[in-house]
Amino acid sequence: MRHTITGFSNPTVKFLRSLRDKKYRKRERRFLAEGLRLLTDARESGRIPEMLVMARGRDEHPLLAALERDVLAAGGTVIETGEEILAKITGKDNPQAVAGVFAEFDTSLSNIERGSAEIWLVAQALRDPGNLGTMLRTGDAVGAGGLILLDDCADPFSVEAVRASMGAIFTQRVAQAGWDEFIAWLRAGDGQLVAASLRNAHDYRSAAYRAPCFLMVGNESRGLPETYEDACDLRVTMPMKGRADSLNAAIAGAVLAYEALAHLDP
Amino acid sequence: MRHTITGFSNPTVKFLRSLRDKKYRKRERRFLAEGLRLLTDARESGRIPEMLVMARGRDEHPLLAALERDVLAAGGTVIETGEEILAKITGKDNPQAVAGVFAEFDTSLSNIERGSAEIWLVAQALRDPGNLGTMLRTGDAVGAGGLILLDDCADPFSVEAVRASMGAIFTQRVAQAGWDEFIAWLRAGDGQLVAASLRNAHDYRSAAYRAPCFLMVGNESRGLPETYEDACDLRVTMPMKGRADSLNAAIAGAVLAYEALAHLDP
Repeated sequence: MRHTITGFSNPTVKFLRSLRDKKYRKRERRFLAEGLRLLTDARESGRIPEMLVMARGRDEHPLLAALERDVLAAGGTVIETGEEILAKITGKDNPQAVAGVFAEFDTSLSNIERGSAEIWLVAQALRDPGNLGTMLRTGDAVGAGGLILLDDCADPFSVEAVRASMGAIFTQRVAQAGWDEFIAWLRAGDGQLVAASLRNAHDYRSAAYRAPCFLMVGNESRGLPETYEDACDLRVTMPMKGRADSLNAAIAGAVLAYEALAHLDP
Repeated sequence: MRHTITGFSNPTVKFLRSLRDKKYRKRERRFLAEGLRLLTDARESGRIPEMLVMARGRDEHPLLAALERDVLAAGGTVIETGEEILAKITGKDNPQAVAGVFAEFDTSLSNIERGSAEIWLVAQALRDPGNLGTMLRTGDAVGAGGLILLDDCADPFSVEAVRASMGAIFTQRVAQAGWDEFIAWLRAGDGQLVAASLRNAHDYRSAAYRAPCFLMVGNESRGLPETYEDACDLRVTMPMKGRADSLNAAIAGAVLAYEALAHLDP
């Protein structure tokens, strides 16, 4: 279905703007992805937006045409609007902007097929959506199965996380769980839980990684709770040569993931 | 010297607020660092702010007392103000906030003593201040000498970059240069230039790193210019197992830096 919207007070405009806000996103169970590149990543991963929004009279582009075709074929809606309204929706002053609305994916742990990948990333109380998106992107690069978010993390469907994932939100599995639920699920099957830690830890280069390997990093300022570290099968540490004793959480996860990859998939 | 400021229109308030803006920062050659932790990192690295700003009646803290003492001993200024004015300066609604004003460091290449470290990080046209700060933090962790910023990078003295560096802005050397200046400087002495690249590249795990090793990553969306890659002594690549063909620039730099560290300092 094709629509044209001309008024700022149109309910669809309000709906689209509301998706920048977590509260409305959770209520609607929908999220926004912006930019032709990201939307093309989604399409190539088999994820078609329910709704596509762009400016009237936007330049033609073969990738945009493909997107429109697929949205319409799937029974979705293509909305054309003025540049000012588009800027209001996307928060950007770019007449070439295009945005898509997707149904949120199911993020229950039961969707994680642990045997389908050698590496899984796990983040606990990760607060920064940019870090979260970057971890998804890194997961894609190392061939991880996905990212498991423990306790109170940033929203993986926020515009910032989706953007930083560079499309990996559409290819990586994402699960959300509390610690108790996660550890019970993990111990009910095969899997090595590895923490980036400074306590009683092995050198990360010579540690014995075992697939499926769950690599866990902690909150940006507090790190992992001690009890979580104690529940791990392996604690590994990276050299810290400077005056600080920690790395950015997404950096620690990536260095660890590339090391584990070299051991598990040499 | 101790001052109390009560009015929003006080010139010092205007000066402090203006330091959030690059144009004024460059004119004043001063930058802001916020938070007791960051300011303590600075102090412990021998960097004392010229000016310290905090709320009147703020809770006492031994680290804050040490900071005040050192600022006054160095002939600097301690400013107490109301919570509302402080919030205006720091952009945060936190009565415990404290901010310091530092003179910008000299960022000419001539300050880089290449033999003083085995690893140096180099970033070309890095646009995101968070990535820049994260690279400084990673540099501190791997014992790098510093970060060399090529071409048009984000400002290392922006509040965001300083914050993301977690204090490493005070311990890592920072240099800024155009490519021509940099490559002439590099070739006038010892040093291996290594690019993270996908073209004619060696596997990053088995490459022959040599100190002083300059590890270069490119712009977030365009990567490194081909001519820059061609001028390198070594091009290395990391496995890309997913559908994307790139990593976040700070992530790529960190994975490479930890690998080089393991080779150079086993």
